[in-house]
Amino acid sequence: MNIQFARRFDGISGSAIREIFKMIAQPDMISFAGGNPSPSALPDEAAARIAAQVLREDGKRILQYGATEGYPPFIESLFAYAKAQLGCEVPAVLPVTGSTQAMDLLCKALIDPGDAILVENPSFLGNLQCMRLYQAKLVPVESDAEGLRLDALEAAMAEHHPKMLYTIPNFQNPTGKTLAADRRQPIAELAAKYGVVVAEDDPYRDLRYRGETAPSIKSFDQEGWVVFLGSFSKIISPGLRVGYMAGDPGLIRKCVMGKQAADLHTATLNQAIVDRFIREGLLPGHISRISASYKQQLDTMLSELESFPRGTSFTRPDGGLFIWVELPEGLDTKALLEKAVARHVAYVPGTHFYADGGHANTLRLNFSNSSIEQIHTGMQALRAVLEEAL
Amino acid sequence: MNIQFARRFDGISGSAIREIFKMIAQPDMISFAGGNPSPSALPDEAAARIAAQVLREDGKRILQYGATEGYPPFIESLFAYAKAQLGCEVPAVLPVTGSTQAMDLLCKALIDPGDAILVENPSFLGNLQCMRLYQAKLVPVESDAEGLRLDALEAAMAEHHPKMLYTIPNFQNPTGKTLAADRRQPIAELAAKYGVVVAEDDPYRDLRYRGETAPSIKSFDQEGWVVFLGSFSKIISPGLRVGYMAGDPGLIRKCVMGKQAADLHTATLNQAIVDRFIREGLLPGHISRISASYKQQLDTMLSELESFPRGTSFTRPDGGLFIWVELPEGLDTKALLEKAVARHVAYVPGTHFYADGGHANTLRLNFSNSSIEQIHTGMQALRAVLEEAL
Repeated sequence: MNIQFARRFDGISGSAIREIFKMIAQPDMISFAGGNPSPSALPDEAAARIAAQVLREDGKRILQYGATEGYPPFIESLFAYAKAQLGCEVPAVLPVTGSTQAMDLLCKALIDPGDAILVENPSFLGNLQCMRLYQAKLVPVESDAEGLRLDALEAAMAEHHPKMLYTIPNFQNPTGKTLAADRRQPIAELAAKYGVVVAEDDPYRDLRYRGETAPSIKSFDQEGWVVFLGSFSKIISPGLRVGYMAGDPGLIRKCVMGKQAADLHTATLNQAIVDRFIREGLLPGHISRISASYKQQLDTMLSELESFPRGTSFTRPDGGLFIWVELPEGLDTKALLEKAVARHVAYVPGTHFYADGGHANTLRLNFSNSSIEQIHTGMQALRAVLEEAL
Repeated sequence: MNIQFARRFDGISGSAIREIFKMIAQPDMISFAGGNPSPSALPDEAAARIAAQVLREDGKRILQYGATEGYPPFIESLFAYAKAQLGCEVPAVLPVTGSTQAMDLLCKALIDPGDAILVENPSFLGNLQCMRLYQAKLVPVESDAEGLRLDALEAAMAEHHPKMLYTIPNFQNPTGKTLAADRRQPIAELAAKYGVVVAEDDPYRDLRYRGETAPSIKSFDQEGWVVFLGSFSKIISPGLRVGYMAGDPGLIRKCVMGKQAADLHTATLNQAIVDRFIREGLLPGHISRISASYKQQLDTMLSELESFPRGTSFTRPDGGLFIWVELPEGLDTKALLEKAVARHVAYVPGTHFYADGGHANTLRLNFSNSSIEQIHTGMQALRAVLEEAL
């Protein structure tokens, strides 16, 4: 048997992160790979109570087929929630099966093979993979410490006539960088000037440990070119697979049609659980608790990085889940991973996050899924691996 | 603002069924449209108990990110379950977000624009829509009372070199027909001879009200060309969005990669609920109960059809959810739908199920979501509409 697969799979391999996950699936591994919430951040008791409650109160509707557009009570709370998040009126929302699905639906709606998508460099590899499966041309745009450079962005829009810009403005994955407040309105204006859809992916927004939250790019959007992707994965549970998109009704309508043929609708029980979590007012307190803990984990990891070998640099994120590290030139984090795993510590080599690869001396560290003690132990092991390699 | 959408949406409109759903969303409507289970078939109490239980016992894992390949306990029970369903060893399984997603992933894995897919004529319009979004060329293959005609199938394979055959062998949607037992092995052999993937979509398999279950096409598959699509939507709950695919490991692997970029994984809570439902042995009794009721509903609808105007013909399904009706030539079920809705009864015009349209005098009736009394009342109203039109 020799199946001829579709051309979109030419050159595609499995997600590097997920393959690394399998490699490090050992009980005594300290994993700075992945982007998992802390187990203590997962509200299992509340979820058990709420799941039973919503099924007892509205079980016949929850277990029946639902509308692609979403579960009515959740749509109602989502409009209010998204308005508060975005700081602006929200013309249309769509619950999705994790914000991963939002990227899939946007590509389905917009991308023909060969169409250009502007991406941060580096960027979230899961969504880069999604874009590759739509045979998009990924065009990296340079950032500085304040996020996307406006001059580079405008030049890329003028040169490549992209269909979409994909950006993670707050505590970016993988770098932890935040887009400067004064670059947000200009990005919305550039999108309108060049006719480019901006996918503003903001899953870490509420996980801010210092400083002020900047307004969303969407809040500066006059014409509807910006679509906001939200997620409950980092603040309630990734296993529930509930996210949302908010934006122009015409674009959302195309995504609804794409979703009908993708999974019909997001599982209603999961929408109902998130809805109830919001309606009971559990979110602010829950976010405060997990943020207090994540801040300590971040600070512990940053202080460990201070004693890394000379020539190591790293970001100092104001929130989110990740720190980005550049090792001295000549070190190859892909090659070093095996040595790190032998010492029971894991990370993701940075090269996977670059549309064009390269940058062999970079790596991404996650701090949310490790205890303070594990961070000390794991970072010391990692330092030993680097010192050995130098 | 003028967004340029992707070419795959050229000529695509929303699903006809779902638009009809909106039109008939009135409290006193008797709907023979849709394919909803009966409310009494939805196990809300068991689901409430089980949801709370699995979250209390394994909540930290259930709420965390999971593997694309599925929740380990569910994979285990799914292997055993699928083996019993298919009547053969199952080399690989993948939980999916409703079997709708299985079709999406198969198209993603296999279909380049212009590739041919053989489809029954008529066939399930949701999946036809999915194929159209992959810009497949849909090639209808004729059936007779025993399902797909083997001569027509082989001729279509030889002429069109299709990538895939899509078939619903048991109680087909929309016709209610079942593929004859002695055509199943030949289909598996034709697939191998011509190198065609067979998507064997079998969501109604367990809803059999008379006769013997025929072996799956998959059970005759020597080389791995047949992939089986299963669903828990009709026997537990469609709102949970849990289905599965079973087939060749290489093909499943491509679907896993496609799924990583589509929704990462099927929500773990939903997999855990279905898993527990299977493990507690609840399925056989539940299926017996709902089948006993559905059989009565089917028989009631069939007996009402006996007194429909001369020239009306209809199928007499052995199971499933649908009856297919052909009215006297000259009647147009799309035009008549408005009159039916005015009399508070609804159906789906048959033309939507044909890849090339036409067949204006056909319609699909669903009996699972209406009470015996509603079936009497609704069918009498429908008969009155037809008598008026003749």
